[in-house]
Amino acid sequence: MQADLMQKIISLCKRRGFVFQSSEIYGGLRSAYDYGPLGAELKRNLMSAWWRAMVNGREDVVGLDASIIMHPRVWEASGHLAGFSDPLVDCKVCKERFRADQAPRAEQGEPVVMTFADKGRAKVAAEVVEQQFGVTLERRGKDLHGAVAGDRGYVCKVCNSPFMSEERQFNLMFRSSLGPVSPLGAIANAIEKGEFEGLAGNDLRAKIDEVTKDGAVYLRPETAQAMFVQFLNVQQSMSMKVPFGIAQMGKSFRNEITVEHFIFRSCEFEQMEMEFFCEPGTDDEWMSYWCDARMSWWQQFANDPSKFRLRPHEPDELAHYAKGCFDIEYDYPWGWGELEGIANRTDYDLKKHAQYSGAKLEYFDPQQQKKFVPYVIEPAAGATRGVLVYLLDAYHEETVEGAKGPETRVVMRFHPQLAPIKVAVLPLVKKNEMPEKAREVVQAFLARGIAASYDEQHAIGRRYRRHDEIGTPWCLTIDGQTMEDGSITLRDRDTMEQRRISIDDAVDEIQRLLAAG
Amino acid sequence: MQADLMQKIISLCKRRGFVFQSSEIYGGLRSAYDYGPLGAELKRNLMSAWWRAMVNGREDVVGLDASIIMHPRVWEASGHLAGFSDPLVDCKVCKERFRADQAPRAEQGEPVVMTFADKGRAKVAAEVVEQQFGVTLERRGKDLHGAVAGDRGYVCKVCNSPFMSEERQFNLMFRSSLGPVSPLGAIANAIEKGEFEGLAGNDLRAKIDEVTKDGAVYLRPETAQAMFVQFLNVQQSMSMKVPFGIAQMGKSFRNEITVEHFIFRSCEFEQMEMEFFCEPGTDDEWMSYWCDARMSWWQQFANDPSKFRLRPHEPDELAHYAKGCFDIEYDYPWGWGELEGIANRTDYDLKKHAQYSGAKLEYFDPQQQKKFVPYVIEPAAGATRGVLVYLLDAYHEETVEGAKGPETRVVMRFHPQLAPIKVAVLPLVKKNEMPEKAREVVQAFLARGIAASYDEQHAIGRRYRRHDEIGTPWCLTIDGQTMEDGSITLRDRDTMEQRRISIDDAVDEIQRLLAAG
Repeated sequence: MQADLMQKIISLCKRRGFVFQSSEIYGGLRSAYDYGPLGAELKRNLMSAWWRAMVNGREDVVGLDASIIMHPRVWEASGHLAGFSDPLVDCKVCKERFRADQAPRAEQGEPVVMTFADKGRAKVAAEVVEQQFGVTLERRGKDLHGAVAGDRGYVCKVCNSPFMSEERQFNLMFRSSLGPVSPLGAIANAIEKGEFEGLAGNDLRAKIDEVTKDGAVYLRPETAQAMFVQFLNVQQSMSMKVPFGIAQMGKSFRNEITVEHFIFRSCEFEQMEMEFFCEPGTDDEWMSYWCDARMSWWQQFANDPSKFRLRPHEPDELAHYAKGCFDIEYDYPWGWGELEGIANRTDYDLKKHAQYSGAKLEYFDPQQQKKFVPYVIEPAAGATRGVLVYLLDAYHEETVEGAKGPETRVVMRFHPQLAPIKVAVLPLVKKNEMPEKAREVVQAFLARGIAASYDEQHAIGRRYRRHDEIGTPWCLTIDGQTMEDGSITLRDRDTMEQRRISIDDAVDEIQRLLAAG
Repeated sequence: MQADLMQKIISLCKRRGFVFQSSEIYGGLRSAYDYGPLGAELKRNLMSAWWRAMVNGREDVVGLDASIIMHPRVWEASGHLAGFSDPLVDCKVCKERFRADQAPRAEQGEPVVMTFADKGRAKVAAEVVEQQFGVTLERRGKDLHGAVAGDRGYVCKVCNSPFMSEERQFNLMFRSSLGPVSPLGAIANAIEKGEFEGLAGNDLRAKIDEVTKDGAVYLRPETAQAMFVQFLNVQQSMSMKVPFGIAQMGKSFRNEITVEHFIFRSCEFEQMEMEFFCEPGTDDEWMSYWCDARMSWWQQFANDPSKFRLRPHEPDELAHYAKGCFDIEYDYPWGWGELEGIANRTDYDLKKHAQYSGAKLEYFDPQQQKKFVPYVIEPAAGATRGVLVYLLDAYHEETVEGAKGPETRVVMRFHPQLAPIKVAVLPLVKKNEMPEKAREVVQAFLARGIAASYDEQHAIGRRYRRHDEIGTPWCLTIDGQTMEDGSITLRDRDTMEQRRISIDDAVDEIQRLLAAG
């Protein structure tokens, strides 16, 4: 069941309006997703819950909503411009471009068998190798024998060829250009002036960089840096006293070479990050506080809290600036993987930005009458991953007795706080004033700010199943008896139990259940 | 007062944590802004109110949250790739690049006086004109006489020169690149292979476009297109029946050459858009429905509803695909300007996307047993502009009697639903268990989901002024009497009236006032 769980989720997400592939009618865009009507609500509910827990519900944390395009110097200071990159390499035979560090390993001198889709391609490949590298290979069907791995330690992920270009660092940030100068226009001008003449290789690339530098900007690869860059503005305008935090949610962008597992790793994604500024020496204590707080936060919405774990980073996993780091991991169908990282970033970022900007990013403590650069504990969560985690956690299949014998019931057992729709109001039939009555009840819920849905299509049993499948915790049914005695049926999604309550108590009862949930 | 109102707002926004310039410590980024703790809440409140009114509170509208980076074919179909551009031109004398359609007018043959910062620059300019254009000008101080306007009909916005480059169309969309191929790397490869040799002008630019086409993507310049592209997925997954709408809020990006008026026109901004799909023939009726609905929505939060007006577009203002369009305008300090546009887009977009994608973007009406392509009414609002409008609407100065004579009181008279903080709880002094009591009250508000703030810094009068200036509608003060009889002072922001209520009724009373507001 684990193996095809992802396929079931992806299919349910499309069928029920949770998640669609971006630009699907155009063949889809690699690695971007659109949240449909129910997915948009699920994500909103998750992110609002985070904002309530991290910002509105606390005196010591305030919010920030910064721009996605920031000054390019921000990424020089943070190290993203120089270091945030993957080593890419091209296969000289099949032309595949891939990440060198994820390619199949092969020891130097080890014989490798290159393999192709068909004989014809293998023949062409043998000619390419002969001509460009002077190596004669022996073809057997679709395979080429006789090649030997070089000192790279890896071969092409597609055809097993050891014949590759130099590795080039590929920056994961999306680059664009701000202002009236277009980089392609600048290159055209430079070509016309002969500025690239006689240049090749790295010299040529450096010159291209220089010519296009004006106006180059990047889409943020994380929301975090804005909290460091705006540290003083926030601290001073809000008179914040250390320890305090600045929180931000929003989109980030990484030009990932490997995208995988549906919305788990995509190029456009959402984060929920908080930087907690504290006095050096108190950082270990706050680290442990935030690890506990964040674990409980995730677990409170889960059907199976045992699928979450807190894993300390090994010393060799630590970023060079981090004093310590824990990952909150989830047991995804393909194994344990990251959901949130909680890092002790020390005073690294504030000092870097102070150095690059010249601003004095420090704090004056009025009680102790001294200045210091705060340490930072950063709980950085993936909002998009959170949506995936709760989709996985909610998915539940069971066999129930249906009208025509045993049938499979699919239930999305979302926590009521996360469920896109809290309550569905269903007239048993589309007559006898039942629709009007049902719509009145829906309006009463909406007036209280409770997401309610009116649904009259198909037989009542099918409507229950539909709401099971989208995770609506409660259904209220208006029937003949309602019109007589003012009672309605309240059905529970998980137990399928039904009981009659007074129509006048319906809103209060659901509100009570929501608060208890 | 109108003249410096913008300066007062910008200064208050920075001082009180509403809006900061993006990346300020790095000298600021042209045309992007960060929302500080209070601005983030104000914007969230505004956008949540829109979502409640347009999505959660209606049976006939559902939400969408699509990716910012979409398939590039989307922008071919929508016309943004070809048509969404400004004509840019370079002055050959002073090198300024500017929008041709916004340059100072000058009739062909009209004498123009070119003018420069100083004599030296005027002298150099005269030499440039002499050498490049063979025209001798007469210098008088910083001015050059003798030039004549050409057939362009305009001159340089900086130096008045009529000597200009050809106009080039500059696309307003931000361009980036998705996937492992970098466009600058592709250009480097092409230069190395000699692919640009012998090319110049438009041929060279076309070749550069061709070489860099792979992986080219754009940041969406509007949220609207996703609703057309995902029309079928949404309609089918949610079993929506025409008429129905799809709504989306979020960031859009336009590489504006002219940015102006603080957050009014910036390159990164937020929108709240809804596409309402209806049967052709019913579109005029829905147009008038949405014009009314949207006007009332904006006016309900305003102190001065007369500053909003609905203006029909003149025929020459209409986009070629629109049957009709109204702007909801606000009377900004610089005059009437757009806040929301409501357009009858007919079936233009669905047909265009059907044509470009091959998908059948039509609707089958089960009642009438017929297929049609719906018409679309689009209320498209600026969320960022909405924030500016309510900042302007809220700003209020008055002279009041202070401790040391008359003083100026600045009040942000935000509608309670929009106010970042609904209630401040203030202990009169930091002792006698007043802080503990006040924190208890704050917690009671937070438990009900009402944004409350604890504040103990400075004298009580100064705290009232601070909360006036950030628009907190109500202050609750805990004093000596509270500890004796359980009564607290409730102060109203606008009237400054104070009355005592029971501490046990405080949460209910504020909730009642909020619901009434």
